[in-house]
Amino acid sequence: MATIPELQAKIRALEDELAAVRAGKAGSGEQPCQRKKIEKMSAEVVDSNPYSRLMALKRMGIVADYEKIREFAVAVVGVGGVGSVTAEMLTRCGIGKLLIFDYDKVELANMNRLFFQPHQAGLSKVEAAKHTLRNINPDVQFETHNYNVTTMDNFQHFMDRIRNGGLQEGQPVDLVLSCVDNFEARMAINTACNELDQVWMESGVSENAVSGHIQFLIPGQTACFACAPPLVVAANIDEKTLKREGVCAASLPTTMGVVAGLLVQNVLKYLLGFGSVSYYLGYNAMQDFFPTMAMKPNPNCDDQSCRLRQEDYKKKEATHPKQQLVEEDQQIVHEENDWGIELVSEVSEEELKAASGPVPDLPVGITVAYTVPDKQEEDTANIGETVQETEQSLEELMAAMKRL
Amino acid sequence: MATIPELQAKIRALEDELAAVRAGKAGSGEQPCQRKKIEKMSAEVVDSNPYSRLMALKRMGIVADYEKIREFAVAVVGVGGVGSVTAEMLTRCGIGKLLIFDYDKVELANMNRLFFQPHQAGLSKVEAAKHTLRNINPDVQFETHNYNVTTMDNFQHFMDRIRNGGLQEGQPVDLVLSCVDNFEARMAINTACNELDQVWMESGVSENAVSGHIQFLIPGQTACFACAPPLVVAANIDEKTLKREGVCAASLPTTMGVVAGLLVQNVLKYLLGFGSVSYYLGYNAMQDFFPTMAMKPNPNCDDQSCRLRQEDYKKKEATHPKQQLVEEDQQIVHEENDWGIELVSEVSEEELKAASGPVPDLPVGITVAYTVPDKQEEDTANIGETVQETEQSLEELMAAMKRL
Repeated sequence: MATIPELQAKIRALEDELAAVRAGKAGSGEQPCQRKKIEKMSAEVVDSNPYSRLMALKRMGIVADYEKIREFAVAVVGVGGVGSVTAEMLTRCGIGKLLIFDYDKVELANMNRLFFQPHQAGLSKVEAAKHTLRNINPDVQFETHNYNVTTMDNFQHFMDRIRNGGLQEGQPVDLVLSCVDNFEARMAINTACNELDQVWMESGVSENAVSGHIQFLIPGQTACFACAPPLVVAANIDEKTLKREGVCAASLPTTMGVVAGLLVQNVLKYLLGFGSVSYYLGYNAMQDFFPTMAMKPNPNCDDQSCRLRQEDYKKKEATHPKQQLVEEDQQIVHEENDWGIELVSEVSEEELKAASGPVPDLPVGITVAYTVPDKQEEDTANIGETVQETEQSLEELMAAMKRL
Repeated sequence: MATIPELQAKIRALEDELAAVRAGKAGSGEQPCQRKKIEKMSAEVVDSNPYSRLMALKRMGIVADYEKIREFAVAVVGVGGVGSVTAEMLTRCGIGKLLIFDYDKVELANMNRLFFQPHQAGLSKVEAAKHTLRNINPDVQFETHNYNVTTMDNFQHFMDRIRNGGLQEGQPVDLVLSCVDNFEARMAINTACNELDQVWMESGVSENAVSGHIQFLIPGQTACFACAPPLVVAANIDEKTLKREGVCAASLPTTMGVVAGLLVQNVLKYLLGFGSVSYYLGYNAMQDFFPTMAMKPNPNCDDQSCRLRQEDYKKKEATHPKQQLVEEDQQIVHEENDWGIELVSEVSEEELKAASGPVPDLPVGITVAYTVPDKQEEDTANIGETVQETEQSLEELMAAMKRL
């Protein structure tokens, strides 16, 4: 028979546990996983198999080897509206390892976007995310870093984890995903990826919540974030700046969900080798318009590592011309148009009158977030050369043709 | 001082509560809400305001009156991969009322899609969804129905709830969203909406998981589900049929998330009056291609209610020609192309050689899920007339032009 103090201790323990579970703080190893780990992915069609619908991609002829997903490590920088959904999708797909970087706390003001829940308000985003994601799929390895990647010390640590935080410690990660909401963080990721020769993908959503984009960056092969003014479907501004002025950017779970979905779809295509990976894909929600393009790097890029990667790529291209693009073999290439038409920018002079830096020719629907004031004029000819153009609306194409 | 039996009772109660919270079963009113209800939406920029980022859409000039979202009731039929995310997005946006219909249980096999969590396995999808959604936003009214809408009794009840389940009992809902995975359920929703003159939106994802679509249906104005073979970006088959044969359709959280995002974005555009609502928007994930189109109804449609709605519409159009489309005033209309070009189908005869029913002219990337074998040949001329064509890739347009 238990004594009264023993029972009281038990009550206190249960009350603590209940509070922890309610707050989403339980875990750090003590909480039992909601499902057991699965040693080997199976294609068996039973209700208890969380991988049956993914392994079916093999039978459907989409993916040759789905199990390979477990061999990849992906870093997600920023787990806000886009990053949290990105992390959840990769977790549900059974990615090998996720490294998550963020320094923000969950707030009720985040509840208009997917993933976080009101009871997590006040927790760090990386801890709250890890708790939820581990319950969803305990087969995934999680590594979280609750810091701002842009400060000097943290940046060095961030670089180290990109270089060594792969599935096997000491190996680099397979892909870095930028899901941040400000210029400094994007530039820090760009600097790290150029220096480490690390392939990465960028994502962004406009401050009016009705447009967004994703971008695929291969150092030396595609324009980096410093090669040209960043491209957006509509202007993008720093949420933090707005906050200080007593206003805030608008956001929608729809736009964020679409951008995260398009981003992770391209991650899966890149890692598992199916379909074609988009270099730049925009989403204009007002008209359901999705402009695409690709840009060559700027030989005079301010980033020294970018210029070095360009040299590496030229040498590699000269010796192994067939291996220039990772996904080239699998890509369903749009045929060259045999009318000899090159589309030019629809961005009006008025729209860009505030611009003091060089502005590349851009397809309809894509514009620059801002321009770099100190750029030399002679850079203009070299930057932002559009190498691919896949989709134009009928009306836009008509307008372009009439100008010929 | 408490007695031992009292303490033991307290322990049992705590253990029950803990188990309930862990299982996500707590609630039916007893569990305290995770945040308090909010009487009036505020635009105040504070971390504790879950609506600040949505109300910011007004300041950004996107939405004239965001608070109006609270006056709408939306029915979501099917809370699987697309429906659950659709319901979550609408909940986070602060919709007035959600009516949710499904008869399935949560299984671990659903865990490769967003929303449901492993600890909910075994619960009915509508109950599990309500529990999660109410915690996310207690301001939303939820009405759940755990049944199959296609059986006779349930269909009558379903019709009654569409007619009377609006924000004010006795008023119709504002929109019905079809997020089901089979033909019978889609046809039941189509029949109900035609009879009730109820505007609805359809969504679907292909069995190979790499394409999907959304469609906007206005009885009498646009082709209904019975007017022509349903349009898909790739073939769609019934998951249940496949299950019986020991195989299953593939699915991805990415494709489902994108389709749900595009669907709810169009719901918001329709309800709140901004941007243009897409009549048919496809998503081809392999190439990040998004075909769009619209179809007029078939005057010889099998559905009698559809034909009646067409008559109503003709009368309305004759007396009030400006009021023909609900969203026409707000729509950013694509200008008529002044080249006089009408695009014709790129669907080859070979692709459709199995077809025994009439096949409408369709844009690239969209095809019919199947054809109806018993259709009269003379119907062909009238069905599936394409009334709008907004996006073609450059190459496709070139090909179309060369044929002129």
